[in-house]
Amino acid sequence: MPTNNSMALETATRRIGEEIFARAEDAMPSVFSMEYWQQYFMDWMTQDEDLKLRLFRFVEVLPGLRSNKAIARHFKQYLDRNGDGHPPLPLPIQMALAYRRPDSLIGTLVAEAAKFGCGVMAKQFIAGATPDEAISAMLVHRRKGMTFTLDVLGETVIADRVAREHQEQYLRLVREMSRVAPTWPANPILDAAPWGPLPRVNISLKLSAIVSKWDASDPAGTTTAVLERLRPVLRAAKESGAFINVDMEHYAVKDMTLEIFKQVLMEPEFRDWSDCGIVIQVYMPDGERDMADLIRWTRKRGVPITVRLVKGAYWDSETANAVRSGWESPLYTKKWESDAAFERTARMMIENADIVRPAFASHNVRSIAHVLALEEALGKPPRTTELQMLTGMGDPLKRAIVEMKQRLRVYAPVGDQMSGMAYFIRRLIENTANESFLRQSFSQDTPTEALLNNPLDHDHIPDTPLPEPYIQDPDEYAEMNTFVNESDIDFGKAHNRDAMEKAFKAARAQFGHQHPAIIRGEPVESGKWFDSLNPSEPTQVVGHTAMCDARIVDRAVEAAAEACRTWSARSLEERADVLEHATDMLHDELFTQAAWLVYEVGKTRQEAVADIMEAIDYLRFYAFEARRLGSRVRRRDYPGETNEYFYGPRGVVAVISPFCFPMALLTGMAAAAVAMGNGVIVKPASTASICGGRIVDLLNRAGLPAGVLNFVPGRGSDVGEALAKHPGVDMVAFTGSSRVGRKIIDFARQLPHGAKGYKHVLAEMGAKNAIIIDDDADVDQAVQATIASAFHYSGQKCTACSRVIVLDDIYDDYIAKLVEAASGIKPAASELPGTTVGPLIDADALKRAKEAVDTAKRESKCLLGGDVSEPGKGGYFMSPVIFGDVKPTAKLAQEEILAPVLAVIRARSFDEAIDIANGTPYALAGGVFSRSPVNIDKAKRLLEVGCLYVNRKITVSRVDRQPFGGVRMSGLGTKTGGPDYLQQYAIPRTISENTMRHGFSPANKTRESEKAHA
Amino acid sequence: MPTNNSMALETATRRIGEEIFARAEDAMPSVFSMEYWQQYFMDWMTQDEDLKLRLFRFVEVLPGLRSNKAIARHFKQYLDRNGDGHPPLPLPIQMALAYRRPDSLIGTLVAEAAKFGCGVMAKQFIAGATPDEAISAMLVHRRKGMTFTLDVLGETVIADRVAREHQEQYLRLVREMSRVAPTWPANPILDAAPWGPLPRVNISLKLSAIVSKWDASDPAGTTTAVLERLRPVLRAAKESGAFINVDMEHYAVKDMTLEIFKQVLMEPEFRDWSDCGIVIQVYMPDGERDMADLIRWTRKRGVPITVRLVKGAYWDSETANAVRSGWESPLYTKKWESDAAFERTARMMIENADIVRPAFASHNVRSIAHVLALEEALGKPPRTTELQMLTGMGDPLKRAIVEMKQRLRVYAPVGDQMSGMAYFIRRLIENTANESFLRQSFSQDTPTEALLNNPLDHDHIPDTPLPEPYIQDPDEYAEMNTFVNESDIDFGKAHNRDAMEKAFKAARAQFGHQHPAIIRGEPVESGKWFDSLNPSEPTQVVGHTAMCDARIVDRAVEAAAEACRTWSARSLEERADVLEHATDMLHDELFTQAAWLVYEVGKTRQEAVADIMEAIDYLRFYAFEARRLGSRVRRRDYPGETNEYFYGPRGVVAVISPFCFPMALLTGMAAAAVAMGNGVIVKPASTASICGGRIVDLLNRAGLPAGVLNFVPGRGSDVGEALAKHPGVDMVAFTGSSRVGRKIIDFARQLPHGAKGYKHVLAEMGAKNAIIIDDDADVDQAVQATIASAFHYSGQKCTACSRVIVLDDIYDDYIAKLVEAASGIKPAASELPGTTVGPLIDADALKRAKEAVDTAKRESKCLLGGDVSEPGKGGYFMSPVIFGDVKPTAKLAQEEILAPVLAVIRARSFDEAIDIANGTPYALAGGVFSRSPVNIDKAKRLLEVGCLYVNRKITVSRVDRQPFGGVRMSGLGTKTGGPDYLQQYAIPRTISENTMRHGFSPANKTRESEKAHA
Repeated sequence: MPTNNSMALETATRRIGEEIFARAEDAMPSVFSMEYWQQYFMDWMTQDEDLKLRLFRFVEVLPGLRSNKAIARHFKQYLDRNGDGHPPLPLPIQMALAYRRPDSLIGTLVAEAAKFGCGVMAKQFIAGATPDEAISAMLVHRRKGMTFTLDVLGETVIADRVAREHQEQYLRLVREMSRVAPTWPANPILDAAPWGPLPRVNISLKLSAIVSKWDASDPAGTTTAVLERLRPVLRAAKESGAFINVDMEHYAVKDMTLEIFKQVLMEPEFRDWSDCGIVIQVYMPDGERDMADLIRWTRKRGVPITVRLVKGAYWDSETANAVRSGWESPLYTKKWESDAAFERTARMMIENADIVRPAFASHNVRSIAHVLALEEALGKPPRTTELQMLTGMGDPLKRAIVEMKQRLRVYAPVGDQMSGMAYFIRRLIENTANESFLRQSFSQDTPTEALLNNPLDHDHIPDTPLPEPYIQDPDEYAEMNTFVNESDIDFGKAHNRDAMEKAFKAARAQFGHQHPAIIRGEPVESGKWFDSLNPSEPTQVVGHTAMCDARIVDRAVEAAAEACRTWSARSLEERADVLEHATDMLHDELFTQAAWLVYEVGKTRQEAVADIMEAIDYLRFYAFEARRLGSRVRRRDYPGETNEYFYGPRGVVAVISPFCFPMALLTGMAAAAVAMGNGVIVKPASTASICGGRIVDLLNRAGLPAGVLNFVPGRGSDVGEALAKHPGVDMVAFTGSSRVGRKIIDFARQLPHGAKGYKHVLAEMGAKNAIIIDDDADVDQAVQATIASAFHYSGQKCTACSRVIVLDDIYDDYIAKLVEAASGIKPAASELPGTTVGPLIDADALKRAKEAVDTAKRESKCLLGGDVSEPGKGGYFMSPVIFGDVKPTAKLAQEEILAPVLAVIRARSFDEAIDIANGTPYALAGGVFSRSPVNIDKAKRLLEVGCLYVNRKITVSRVDRQPFGGVRMSGLGTKTGGPDYLQQYAIPRTISENTMRHGFSPANKTRESEKAHA
Repeated sequence: MPTNNSMALETATRRIGEEIFARAEDAMPSVFSMEYWQQYFMDWMTQDEDLKLRLFRFVEVLPGLRSNKAIARHFKQYLDRNGDGHPPLPLPIQMALAYRRPDSLIGTLVAEAAKFGCGVMAKQFIAGATPDEAISAMLVHRRKGMTFTLDVLGETVIADRVAREHQEQYLRLVREMSRVAPTWPANPILDAAPWGPLPRVNISLKLSAIVSKWDASDPAGTTTAVLERLRPVLRAAKESGAFINVDMEHYAVKDMTLEIFKQVLMEPEFRDWSDCGIVIQVYMPDGERDMADLIRWTRKRGVPITVRLVKGAYWDSETANAVRSGWESPLYTKKWESDAAFERTARMMIENADIVRPAFASHNVRSIAHVLALEEALGKPPRTTELQMLTGMGDPLKRAIVEMKQRLRVYAPVGDQMSGMAYFIRRLIENTANESFLRQSFSQDTPTEALLNNPLDHDHIPDTPLPEPYIQDPDEYAEMNTFVNESDIDFGKAHNRDAMEKAFKAARAQFGHQHPAIIRGEPVESGKWFDSLNPSEPTQVVGHTAMCDARIVDRAVEAAAEACRTWSARSLEERADVLEHATDMLHDELFTQAAWLVYEVGKTRQEAVADIMEAIDYLRFYAFEARRLGSRVRRRDYPGETNEYFYGPRGVVAVISPFCFPMALLTGMAAAAVAMGNGVIVKPASTASICGGRIVDLLNRAGLPAGVLNFVPGRGSDVGEALAKHPGVDMVAFTGSSRVGRKIIDFARQLPHGAKGYKHVLAEMGAKNAIIIDDDADVDQAVQATIASAFHYSGQKCTACSRVIVLDDIYDDYIAKLVEAASGIKPAASELPGTTVGPLIDADALKRAKEAVDTAKRESKCLLGGDVSEPGKGGYFMSPVIFGDVKPTAKLAQEEILAPVLAVIRARSFDEAIDIANGTPYALAGGVFSRSPVNIDKAKRLLEVGCLYVNRKITVSRVDRQPFGGVRMSGLGTKTGGPDYLQQYAIPRTISENTMRHGFSPANKTRESEKAHA
């Protein structure tokens, strides 16, 4: 009977658990050991969450600091928290903070002490800096009765050279260990399993560490690249009898990791090889299914493999990522679910131990005990299962397991502190977390019994709440649902890739069509047409658009003025309804519309989809905002006097939109104008006319009355100028380059005959956006962000980074990594799945960019690219260009270039860096990479930009989260996607009415009945 | 024993009360009488508050409608409430609404029926249209055993001719009645009192009806004017043996009415006259004190007078007025308090009946019974007390009182429906109010016993809630105290008048001082000075102000830029604190500061005080708003990502302010700029430099750090232009004329060398504000509002009305009354208490105004004023000028003239009127006088103005209640004193920070502790 069985199993689990605890108790470190003091230190940190965070942040930046002075400075900045309401600091820290200047003697001593302390702590979790060191350290484990597996530290790979180095390190580990392994004293418990001998050499390998680009949206390309690097390592292992375990990392790489593992093991060369393994994570519902699939596949292959079962180590970042992307978390949201899944999956594995050799990595005594009880209950020989733990954690547990004669393998990474910091931090967090099993085990608070509870008995177990966005708003939002951004599209999912390809095909079938203007909902032809070419392949004519003129503009203005009258009489709610309908439609047509962006303006599929998502966000957000404004008609009614304050339309709004976000920005401006009851005329960038027309068409289909939204494509010098100067246009909303923007502003500010007043002008223009790299920046992170900011979409976004200002101390290091990483970027047709950088928008843009580079070469040093004779390849492609040691006043550092051209400027101090950053007339976006709280704060206060991005790329702002817009020469008007945006398209109006008529008034309704004092 | 006494009195009261009820019951009208059906109609109205309101509004407009078509149209507009959620209309009304077109046959029938119905109803409360009619009607009362007092209808007196007519009507009533009174059949109960015979002729007279201007702030002038008109009436009465009772009206005229009454009766001519009386109101705490004073005074005089005790008939308007002015209500807020005060005061009167002959006006049976019981208890002969009731109300009660052989006097007004509408409406409201004693008496719901309860037994009596403002806001305000406007100053109070005179004296003592510029908190002299002259008396030099130049502007810009850096680092709360401190200071210095406005810019004391109050409101409101913005830092924090949106300063703000509201508008702009953390430079209008400097000084005294607010007076062509063009100025906030405004805009829009970007420009400019007078407007109300809007402060306010657009049907009537009323306005020195219109600002302004009038005379017909050779009188005075039948396109109707010059334009229809109103490039304020809901709605939708005022004057907008500002050529920017204003002085900034560092982040604080899924 299963009940009896399960009761017996539960009893056995508890028995084994109690034994582990008892033995571990005996093995607790004494107060004379370093281990004891480390544990003590961690306990102490966990009592003060704020201090812990400060310490973590300090530890995190430590390896990046280049002098004792810098260390002392950061120590003070992170740990000095006087006067902000927290309890007093522990005395040792207070004493350590007693220095005034970081380069004083005390400062230096504190810096040395901090380095020493962190070094000791980090070493606890790392096998050694070199393979030799690691092997020696591991032999100590073997002597204590544990075997081990080694991994190479290093997570972020931004240059192919580093990926190659990782591969070489794995190869070296395999070869060097295999050379010395035979000399190790034998231990039958460790070196053999019930099915035979085990390799002494065991390596854990991360696939993402051996390639520089892991692109989930390009599985074929990625697989090819990984296999190319993986095969030599497997080959070496097979040749020298070593074991290779493929580690599992983030959810995003899981499926492809499994696929690559299976694919390579079916290759003839490895078809019969069994000294290899993989990891299955069960902190997600996928885990059990993955395991079942793997068992099925292994049975088909017929040769055993090893599987390490883990719960999973990326709970924070997976859930955070899901929340940020608008996805359901792929993970269980309750800890007991992971624990229960672990036990269910363990049973599956032990039952199939003949083909899937089971290894279990956990420090959870309940989980370990349950695995051992299962082995017993299922009648498997001892040590069918292998237990695994991390080096530096739970040593008393390890000793208990060894005493119980189990095979225990210690996982240990190899590498220096610098590259292991992420790993070190993860271990620190784990050891100090409230829910940490280890922490609970060794605290006096939780009784052993409770720690051994069946996870299904989960009433005792507190839920782990999913992280949630923290939204702080004026209370006016209180009764509204929160606005939610459109969820990201995951091209790691096959169905999304398929939908995209289908949309490409459909779009291609419509190439060459004619796209008329639209006025009063009717198509209007001008007699003349202009072509949109595919910038990746200009021989392809994407379509023909009507070339409009001033005469058609007149008609459109008339239509818009007329439509405004009735449209503005509708309530904000009714208008919001139409926008929301459009939101739904655009969501449904996402891939279809994205395909046109790829073909007309050369965006990659990711960029194209992001553009549509932003358009959806604008529609949804402005509908949301319209409802908010509609629900907050402001009243100040006094007895006998009503006072209203509300927003009326401006009248006729001309929307002039750019090519860089042809759907998002057009939609944003048009939706805002429409929401506030205006009549609107859209003039798209001529290079993005088809995309613009598609959005106008969609909004009209969504239910805008004819004439509310008109579409007048054409040349800027015809249509744009005519709109800006038109006496019937009340407002111009422009987004585009500074060059065009200034003209539009000048035109719009004229007072033409017949104008009723000054036009209201919104202009989001160009910029010369800078990122400052502080001397304590995380260089890898900074380089990655620079590349994305400066080179994605060929630097044509208005927020693209075109200046990097780097502090002297870090300059060389940063430049080396930047150039190395950027040199790996090869522009390609944007339609291809693996493309990260596509073409420039048109031949003109390419020509202007090349001229700018040529000019720049005369005053600055070109470090990468800039070869004017670059092969044509058919499209308007340009590889990244980097200039070094550029003078802040150089033309290259002052003038807008919409191309992948980056000026790197050297600064002697952070203050100078800020002055340089502020030293252009532009002020749109800016970035700073720093881990100095003081400098981050300084940047927040002093960088003259509309949008500041700290420790992240400066492109991609999301509606509502990062309201967007510049000041000074970068823009007139307030932030798009923010709480003040819609109001700009409206005229606030006041109506005061005297309602008292001979002593009675409706506002007095409840009062008038109570007079009669006569 | 008092207890026994009071118990006996209570018993007697109840006994008499029961008797009155019993007799009244018998006297109830039968269903065959008109009276019955009127009562039935009123009952029916009271069951549907919304319908009642609609009916009242219809009745109110009815006398103003000039055709059956108009009546039918309004009937439909008021009563057709289909589909707005109310219960279905009563069937007769539904049927009456069945017509489509107001000029259809049914429409005409309905109109006739409505007129007939209202006529019947109105006649119920009015004695007759002429004295003859009235006297005949009153003889019917005498036949029924009641005597009477007659009053002349008419409340709003806007022209002296009408006041004179009222006086003549009173004289005629006295004379004609006295002539026929001896022929009336005698009735000893009515014609004699215990102390002797009573005059048969009894007239009630309102003092405010016999003068055209009652100015509480000028008691001496008003008293003189009233006495001049009053004496002939008293003389006539004395001569013919008639009785004159001085009626009591609003609280604002009470004290002066009592004073005038006492003063005239001490004149030798009337020293011994006893056939006169006055009214005391006891619905206010003042009542008992007033009565005691009066008894004391009468004893001193030694000759009896009569006093009519009432509770008071202006509860609604008194309390509404108090709430609007920010005053405590002068009235009791609980009805039982009035009832109790009535009984206490009645005792005082009956005890002093030898000298103060008591009359009691009430329909409240409890009050009446108590009075009769008191008379008995105090041992006074019967009919020592006189009872009074209104004609047309409570007739069964009257019959009961007559049966009980009491002397009952019926109060009845004489006049036509038109002038009696206010009176009629008051009676309608009274009869249908829930708390109406009459209504309660004749409904079946309230038992007689309860109606006779002692008011001190007030647990049974529901409180009358005071009317309160209804504030509707976005919920963000929920936890904040509501902003409250500064309370009005009542110059009816002697202490305010005294304070003002003291301030004048103090200001005069400082005439001729030198006023330097202020930079960095230090006085700066330029070497040159310019003079401020008193426009009422230009020989007086008010003071000398430093004449600054571009060089001083440079210094100020530098100081402001520097100060901005530290000032903007302070929190919004800290900055709000300083503004609030300034609010308190300005409140304390109100009269002192106002005196300077009177002398420097020629405002009357009322206008000067209003200017300061507005300045106080701006300070308080922007402090309030700064706190609101400070408390709503918008956050969108996602796991690992913080997103802030907040408001940073613009930098250096130049404030260029006008002379018309030299303190309010300067303070508004400066306070907003300062609140948002900017460095500010103030350039006042040169004609208002001393006033400007005083405000800057006050703000600096209030705690602004040196350099935050700088003061640079001088010529517009020097300082104004230099500021507008300065590359270091980031924003210009201008308020002033269009002429100057356009220049400032053009200057500010240049991009001077060294400018970091486009300047942000706010400009509140001039206008050509129009008021539309619909054909159903309340002409008296419209004329009063036109005069205030067009001529107060000599038409120099930016919102001054300079065009009136009048519908054809009402044109002649309106023009006649307007010209008559305006001709009574004589400009005078603004310092004098009685002045309503002072001088123009300076000689130039007067010259320009005269030139404009001269020009206008060539194209339009001048109906009033415009005599260019107007006597100099020393000051820059100009009497009101009115042009009639002005063409909408005439220069006079298109161009801004800051002077008391009004263009009246004729329109054939309301639509045409709107087109004419919209037919200038300006769009600031506008007004409409209409009682057609459809047309009011049309005006709200179609009048292109920033601020629309319905049925009220278009000048005087109050901070927060009526956010203020224009569009088109009248202004760039949003409304001052509104919820979007402060943001204009700020740059919204977005900061997005990636806080995730290797898997941990502070935003994740609560989360990171819960990872450990490993």
